[in-house]
Amino acid sequence: MHIVTLTTDFGTADWFVGTMKGVILSIAPRAKIVDITHEIPGGDIRAGAFALAASYRFFPRKAIHIAVVDPGVGSRRTAIAVQTADYFFIGPDNGVLSLALAKERIKSIHRLTNKKFFLQPVRQTFHGRDVFAPVAAHLSEGVALRKFGPEQKYFTRLDWSGPRQNRGTIQGEVVYIDRFGNAITNITGELLAQLKPSSLRVFVQQKRLCPVKDFYQAVPVGKAVGVIGSSGFLEIAVNGGSAAQEFSLKIGDAVAVRKK
Amino acid sequence: MHIVTLTTDFGTADWFVGTMKGVILSIAPRAKIVDITHEIPGGDIRAGAFALAASYRFFPRKAIHIAVVDPGVGSRRTAIAVQTADYFFIGPDNGVLSLALAKERIKSIHRLTNKKFFLQPVRQTFHGRDVFAPVAAHLSEGVALRKFGPEQKYFTRLDWSGPRQNRGTIQGEVVYIDRFGNAITNITGELLAQLKPSSLRVFVQQKRLCPVKDFYQAVPVGKAVGVIGSSGFLEIAVNGGSAAQEFSLKIGDAVAVRKK
Amino acid sequence: MHIVTLTTDFGTADWFVGTMKGVILSIAPRAKIVDITHEIPGGDIRAGAFALAASYRFFPRKAIHIAVVDPGVGSRRTAIAVQTADYFFIGPDNGVLSLALAKERIKSIHRLTNKKFFLQPVRQTFHGRDVFAPVAAHLSEGVALRKFGPEQKYFTRLDWSGPRQNRGTIQGEVVYIDRFGNAITNITGELLAQLKPSSLRVFVQQKRLCPVKDFYQAVPVGKAVGVIGSSGFLEIAVNGGSAAQEFSLKIGDAVAVRKK
Repeated sequence: MHIVTLTTDFGTADWFVGTMKGVILSIAPRAKIVDITHEIPGGDIRAGAFALAASYRFFPRKAIHIAVVDPGVGSRRTAIAVQTADYFFIGPDNGVLSLALAKERIKSIHRLTNKKFFLQPVRQTFHGRDVFAPVAAHLSEGVALRKFGPEQKYFTRLDWSGPRQNRGTIQGEVVYIDRFGNAITNITGELLAQLKPSSLRVFVQQKRLCPVKDFYQAVPVGKAVGVIGSSGFLEIAVNGGSAAQEFSLKIGDAVAVRKK
Repeated sequence: MHIVTLTTDFGTADWFVGTMKGVILSIAPRAKIVDITHEIPGGDIRAGAFALAASYRFFPRKAIHIAVVDPGVGSRRTAIAVQTADYFFIGPDNGVLSLALAKERIKSIHRLTNKKFFLQPVRQTFHGRDVFAPVAAHLSEGVALRKFGPEQKYFTRLDWSGPRQNRGTIQGEVVYIDRFGNAITNITGELLAQLKPSSLRVFVQQKRLCPVKDFYQAVPVGKAVGVIGSSGFLEIAVNGGSAAQEFSLKIGDAVAVRKK
Repeated sequence: MHIVTLTTDFGTADWFVGTMKGVILSIAPRAKIVDITHEIPGGDIRAGAFALAASYRFFPRKAIHIAVVDPGVGSRRTAIAVQTADYFFIGPDNGVLSLALAKERIKSIHRLTNKKFFLQPVRQTFHGRDVFAPVAAHLSEGVALRKFGPEQKYFTRLDWSGPRQNRGTIQGEVVYIDRFGNAITNITGELLAQLKPSSLRVFVQQKRLCPVKDFYQAVPVGKAVGVIGSSGFLEIAVNGGSAAQEFSLKIGDAVAVRKK
């Protein structure tokens, strides 16, 4: 198996992603490349980190996950490849890998410095194509992680405050708005399960918004509902509508859950 | 051959489609996954059904077509897998498969109830990933259709009125607007061929609009033309422009074709 | 290796690209199909030509590149397949292949006339699916180029004026705006290297705009910078912003580079 996934903010309007695939296939003809998304808002490291964390574990073991949301490309930020118990992760060391890595058992982290494995000449504006793609391809062809550069012990983490629980109230925030206008929070299903989901209410910016149910259509069309979404996090939805639009929800909005 | 196609309203901005592919490849590493489209308007079962019906037959025999436009996900609607003479179809039994199935010789229809073939735990908001993707993958690996659940004899059809012919006039409606602004009708090329295409005129909402020609550039730039489009249906186009915009065409508009 | 790439203006909202892939895989099951982009603005041959020229050489040798930006589909424009020293190119002979071909050593050009290799019946509105896709598939399966139709000696070129150099000033124009709002010019890095990049300034429509640097973050956030972009051309960018928006840059704008 030679799966390589791509999570970027390159969009699909230009040829950027296509050339990354060309580079990978030139080195690793058997690679199977899967797009996770290329529509991360330009430079939004946090959104890229969330998309990767929500998706990486649905791939076969040994899959190589490339994430490139890289506003600092060409400057001093370093690039890393990380091996965990089940996967490989490759990208800039700017936090875009950190939410996924936080859930995994890390085996080693290597800085990408060995130019032998880069596409030459390296353009200082497109490490996705010239650094990350060829490194992933060589890795999928069996090159050992340590060949790419020296080991380091840490990776850059995002300033991402997990949810807090306090006397029957869970407090978190909106961390992602998806294409359907669902507002995904950082409150996990596991945390909610400690309270009694069926009697809980969701509050946004102090205002009571909706109950917690098992699926969208558990409330009438046009009504709001909190559900544990497919990523395992509480999300605020409107049955048949867009919660983000209806309630002007945005990333960073405070969300609380407690008994009615 | 292990082709699995995807027709959904999930968009490509988030990671939803990527995780479906990860799930499929985890079970069926040799699967070849092809996107038909993920830009069906959210919850628009009719548009999803049309896109699938317009495309499925261009794939090799035995291809497995997944279509997920599923506003009722998690509620009581059932999920089905259908074998026809040439293909397999998997999706919610809400009509999204029905236009394609209406053109095929059906061999058997099975309800998807056997949780053994689902991704666990099944999220009630994302059967695309947790039910349809793993079932398609197991099917492509050779699991027999009857293993997925009990047979049923029917499938849900859309309320889709075919075109009517009456004394030299064919009446139908606009059923899809494509990215170029072409308004695709439900009037088939076969039906038109019974009249004499070269002398026909297209009327929209009772107003004479344009002649029927063989290709877009058979009329001057900026002019309207009716052509039998690539899906085999009459479509109204503007050479070098958008018919939908120019004439404010929308889905459901009455279209008639008769001699000038 | 059976790589087939696709560069089109078909968009991804409809099923057009999906059916091209179905047709290719029906003939050439082992083909590996890679999307370069499908978001070329409708009918913009120049943008399609630039996208192809910027990307084709990152693919393995013998890759088959299909480019379909084809406003004249169904009319008299001819269709061609071209073999160069390293690649194959297939598309309408309307200039969309020409920027890439201009960089390659051409071995032979054949008109596509042999209907035996087309999908029947050929729809006059969708040669992407009915002509270019099956021809590419047969080519990848080993059919010789001359089987597709008679040889011709020329291909249609775009009216594309290369940059001019005159006493220390290089003059060119904006030829593409990418998703980040970077304005890509037709001034090559090789040309710039003949002057002394570190002391150069970029002028747009006679106004001094920015210095030339190695990467975007070499200037403060919000500031403009000229860099040799990933395609090898000078591009005008704003660190963390959109140069196209900030300076109302558009395709065709005159760009000059000279010492401060």
